[in-house]
Amino acid sequence: MIRFENDYSEGAHERVLKRIVETNEEQTAGYGTDEHCEKARNDIRKACNASDADVHFLVGGTQTNTTVISSILRPHQGVVSATTGHIAGLETGAIESTGHKVLTVPSEDGKVRAAQVKEMYDAHMSQGTPEHRVQPGMVYISHPTEMGTTYTRSELEELKRVCQECDLPLFLDGARLGYGLVSEGTDLTLEDIARLCDVFYIGGTKIGALFGEAVVITNERLKKDFRYLIKQRGGLLAKGRLLGIQFETLFEDGLYLRISKHAVDMALMIREAFVEGGFSLRYDSKTNQQFPILPNEVLVELGKHYSFSIWEKIKDTHSVVRICTSYATKKEHVEAFIQDIKKCQLTAVH
Amino acid sequence: MIRFENDYSEGAHERVLKRIVETNEEQTAGYGTDEHCEKARNDIRKACNASDADVHFLVGGTQTNTTVISSILRPHQGVVSATTGHIAGLETGAIESTGHKVLTVPSEDGKVRAAQVKEMYDAHMSQGTPEHRVQPGMVYISHPTEMGTTYTRSELEELKRVCQECDLPLFLDGARLGYGLVSEGTDLTLEDIARLCDVFYIGGTKIGALFGEAVVITNERLKKDFRYLIKQRGGLLAKGRLLGIQFETLFEDGLYLRISKHAVDMALMIREAFVEGGFSLRYDSKTNQQFPILPNEVLVELGKHYSFSIWEKIKDTHSVVRICTSYATKKEHVEAFIQDIKKCQLTAVH
Amino acid sequence: MIRFENDYSEGAHERVLKRIVETNEEQTAGYGTDEHCEKARNDIRKACNASDADVHFLVGGTQTNTTVISSILRPHQGVVSATTGHIAGLETGAIESTGHKVLTVPSEDGKVRAAQVKEMYDAHMSQGTPEHRVQPGMVYISHPTEMGTTYTRSELEELKRVCQECDLPLFLDGARLGYGLVSEGTDLTLEDIARLCDVFYIGGTKIGALFGEAVVITNERLKKDFRYLIKQRGGLLAKGRLLGIQFETLFEDGLYLRISKHAVDMALMIREAFVEGGFSLRYDSKTNQQFPILPNEVLVELGKHYSFSIWEKIKDTHSVVRICTSYATKKEHVEAFIQDIKKCQLTAVH
Amino acid sequence: MIRFENDYSEGAHERVLKRIVETNEEQTAGYGTDEHCEKARNDIRKACNASDADVHFLVGGTQTNTTVISSILRPHQGVVSATTGHIAGLETGAIESTGHKVLTVPSEDGKVRAAQVKEMYDAHMSQGTPEHRVQPGMVYISHPTEMGTTYTRSELEELKRVCQECDLPLFLDGARLGYGLVSEGTDLTLEDIARLCDVFYIGGTKIGALFGEAVVITNERLKKDFRYLIKQRGGLLAKGRLLGIQFETLFEDGLYLRISKHAVDMALMIREAFVEGGFSLRYDSKTNQQFPILPNEVLVELGKHYSFSIWEKIKDTHSVVRICTSYATKKEHVEAFIQDIKKCQLTAVH
Repeated sequence: MIRFENDYSEGAHERVLKRIVETNEEQTAGYGTDEHCEKARNDIRKACNASDADVHFLVGGTQTNTTVISSILRPHQGVVSATTGHIAGLETGAIESTGHKVLTVPSEDGKVRAAQVKEMYDAHMSQGTPEHRVQPGMVYISHPTEMGTTYTRSELEELKRVCQECDLPLFLDGARLGYGLVSEGTDLTLEDIARLCDVFYIGGTKIGALFGEAVVITNERLKKDFRYLIKQRGGLLAKGRLLGIQFETLFEDGLYLRISKHAVDMALMIREAFVEGGFSLRYDSKTNQQFPILPNEVLVELGKHYSFSIWEKIKDTHSVVRICTSYATKKEHVEAFIQDIKKCQLTAVH
Repeated sequence: MIRFENDYSEGAHERVLKRIVETNEEQTAGYGTDEHCEKARNDIRKACNASDADVHFLVGGTQTNTTVISSILRPHQGVVSATTGHIAGLETGAIESTGHKVLTVPSEDGKVRAAQVKEMYDAHMSQGTPEHRVQPGMVYISHPTEMGTTYTRSELEELKRVCQECDLPLFLDGARLGYGLVSEGTDLTLEDIARLCDVFYIGGTKIGALFGEAVVITNERLKKDFRYLIKQRGGLLAKGRLLGIQFETLFEDGLYLRISKHAVDMALMIREAFVEGGFSLRYDSKTNQQFPILPNEVLVELGKHYSFSIWEKIKDTHSVVRICTSYATKKEHVEAFIQDIKKCQLTAVH
Repeated sequence: MIRFENDYSEGAHERVLKRIVETNEEQTAGYGTDEHCEKARNDIRKACNASDADVHFLVGGTQTNTTVISSILRPHQGVVSATTGHIAGLETGAIESTGHKVLTVPSEDGKVRAAQVKEMYDAHMSQGTPEHRVQPGMVYISHPTEMGTTYTRSELEELKRVCQECDLPLFLDGARLGYGLVSEGTDLTLEDIARLCDVFYIGGTKIGALFGEAVVITNERLKKDFRYLIKQRGGLLAKGRLLGIQFETLFEDGLYLRISKHAVDMALMIREAFVEGGFSLRYDSKTNQQFPILPNEVLVELGKHYSFSIWEKIKDTHSVVRICTSYATKKEHVEAFIQDIKKCQLTAVH
Repeated sequence: MIRFENDYSEGAHERVLKRIVETNEEQTAGYGTDEHCEKARNDIRKACNASDADVHFLVGGTQTNTTVISSILRPHQGVVSATTGHIAGLETGAIESTGHKVLTVPSEDGKVRAAQVKEMYDAHMSQGTPEHRVQPGMVYISHPTEMGTTYTRSELEELKRVCQECDLPLFLDGARLGYGLVSEGTDLTLEDIARLCDVFYIGGTKIGALFGEAVVITNERLKKDFRYLIKQRGGLLAKGRLLGIQFETLFEDGLYLRISKHAVDMALMIREAFVEGGFSLRYDSKTNQQFPILPNEVLVELGKHYSFSIWEKIKDTHSVVRICTSYATKKEHVEAFIQDIKKCQLTAVH
């Protein structure tokens, strides 16, 4: 069985693991105060062209979203998100567990539009008694989105403009950031993101690390006491150096983007195979996740050798499936998969 | 500089790391549903002689304490802890962040006595209007304690008896469990703990793993939906297999206790050196943490080559320091340290 | 200006106020342990035909919803509600502030259907990894709903059946309960509600009292320690006797239903006037709230002498308004209003 | 049985009740936006000599403490309080239920000293890793305290100075504020309190009102969005005018202080009787609460006709009792009580 069901099926990129092994006997201070973390923080600041940014390392995505969001909002505020946002549906109410409502705006492709934020904000503020409702307090987006779509630079600039107008900090979830940055579907760079977002994170778990997310805070107002928040939410790793070592490796010579590119190349090969095979795609993703719509018989056939997630049932006859590649995806697996897709197509035609 | 300041200064035990490397390219399901986790769960059940126990893996101690405690208590209940308990003072209010008060009982040596629990419970229940106060809802202890002391079997049995009488689940924090289990100061075994506690955890972070804590739930009533709680609190690691692989290695042939023993042996050598040198010990610890009381000049002298934590100032002339060994402590480092302790003694004498 | 904008524009029913004055110098125990509260609790148990029910008095609706819901749910659970439910939109995230998500099902008329609950529950449970999502933990409805609509006995029985099947406690918000009970649109009685709901409340604030809501808990499992929860959520009134005195008065000889009937009679007169005037109604309410759709010019005209809430704008030309009557609505005000509605109609026709 | 067990045994001052009756049929806007509230807010601003202060009305003390404190703190911060503070022990963990720890300093007489705050703050900030501990975020005091003691102007000035130095907002719980303001034991005025505290409240429940507390916010930084917080915590009374009417009455011609004075006069008569009778006092209270230490036989004897709270047992032979007077205490009851105290004394002597 070859797994395409998610982008965290393997361990870590070999260079990352090698560094962990090499440094294993080093003695360092705990909780991210060691030199590896310091170097990684500097490397990330450079890559972001944000020399004043605060950089923190956490272990996983849910933890990071919860820590960042609850550090920003006051009790009566909520976070604006697409209905499809990870925080809205896939984190067991972690945001609510810290006392805050997720205020959703509808989204077909996973993106939040500037106009939607403006509209929600204005609607709230223009009520006679706004204090009876949760106040929008910040905006959460992800890049790429859960659907693999990406923001363009101008879309993000527009979103930022509205957020500033409404005094709403903008937070970008970058659990798959590398896969978005290398996508041909967008002109948005890491520097742009650091310039336009108040806080965002660079995902390691899904891109080369064993685990780890690097939070970058560029808005001065959001920096204060963030380490307290990490500790309180259980994200301050005792052996914090592990996070430093991993991000140090991923950022020392462009490894992060290089391995992201590999994953996306593999995904686009698979995409092309589906398109050529006459299958429709549910979302127009140019990143590492692909969402073909498959008839049941193809699902069964491909399911014999490959695993993937069922995303959505369409009537009784079809399903949208999610197929993920990652930095670790082997080209021979992709080629085998493509061959099998082709066979399904032939079968379907005849 | 040789570090004795904590027990998480290095990476992982070499065998643990080797297994992570060996399995790196394996593809597994996520979030702890893989075969390594399954095997580790079974190994732990066997070691605990608790075939019906639920076993879950989380990343760190604060996260584990928070997840377990908030899964048990109702909103108006608090957790009973020693004033010196880790949850009472060193987790940035993580327990309170989930809505619950930590109800402290005084403790000189870090232990909670059965009689203290009974007294607090009776005092609460005998009030005219108990509903104006937080209700004791469970008991938290650690073994060894923050002071390196340990419970005996009869002490834990007595605590359990009172907890049952008062309908209070008993939770044991085992962040350093191995170091307690091999201590000559106690007759308490892992099986005893599994039999007497409703839930406890086996610490990996401080004993051989890169990170990881294994929660063991023996009380049927506390098992339900625990994975939801882990996810909500940000503890469900995407690459959960990493936890499985590590605990599988630590429990496959007694490695966990063996390396714990090494740490404690090293600590006792250091203890002896201090005692022989005429230094007093703040707590009577027979585990991997030692708390000698040092005059300032000794502190300065030893501080030139060794790092340790200042635990408590005593007047202007002395300090209690905490010295930790771990599975990774090198015997030659300990021997060098002992030589330097001896020199301090001589200096002190002359 | 005559106010129809809500059902809490006046003080209290004269008999309620009279009793408060008469008992003013009595000395009683605090926090609801006095004899007035005891008598009121018994009167309510009788009216509900639920001799084993626990009855508690709280001050207001948001407080009551929050206290009840947070007393029932575990941290990973949410409360199922119509999108239009009061807890979903009009309580500033009070439910989320206690850590729980409101899980909404769409509703046009304010009611939650049994099939919707079943579908949400089944969808949750049939997922491969349900622990990544909030678990439905109870169901919240109100009677009448925010739209003035009511449940029939068979609808509530069906809802109860599904709730039991899914092990979901059923909670009925009765902030306007009296107005629902006397409505000709439903055959549902107070006894039915006590039989079919696990917990519900009888609203006083909007029906004759200065303030106050009476929570009735019939499910044994939900009774434990409820007074602690009230105290923690700030709802345990020091001079609790005020709640007892008010409910004692409202329930001693059917006053509660009698004054509810008056309010609904007034509302139906207004409803008829609108219908006869050719105006459409947004919802088919047979309770004390009416929702006519008015063209702008009528809105302006009626707005000169009467206040009401703008519920929803329809294009640029019309608005849905909410008109409330209450136990205190004066018949002469209603008659004047009807005359003015008729004038608007004539104007509109010519 | 004559009740001295608390200061909320009766309804309201007759003038307060009269105004409620007189205004009963008035129609007003809801949620505190009516003219009575507006007038009461202005009266209070004048009495405080704080024309820019925000004034809000809530229903009860626990609710007020919770709303104020949770509106100020960030998640990792706690509130500093005396161990004897109401929030520390008598509100069922309401503060913790909003996610915050109560950081206690020892106090024999109920007061928090400036030096204690400074010491706690410095101790926190001087740690190597403060982020592992809850950060002091504000200071909570009450005037009078739970023990009936009061702050002097210079004590409060000193506390304020330290609070400013440490950037800690100072919050004064004035549930019994009137009884403190008229006490001969202090020179502190309402104007002083408004000048020195960032936020405080004026208690109505225990001084003439049926219920109600008036929060006064003088610190600009703490004003924003406070109505949202009140609503979320369940404190925004639908018939908010009831709070306005009551405070309007209490503040229109000095009624509040006048009736406070009566209560304190009554308490001092009782105090004198105990002192003359040779009984010791547990605390040196010059306010409406008195804490004599009574031998068991006196306790039994007085308990036949008077109720009071047992505050603390002293050995097996004595108890500290709390005796409260209030605005409603009848002089003939006090005189009868004094006679009976005298009898006890005689009995005791012979």
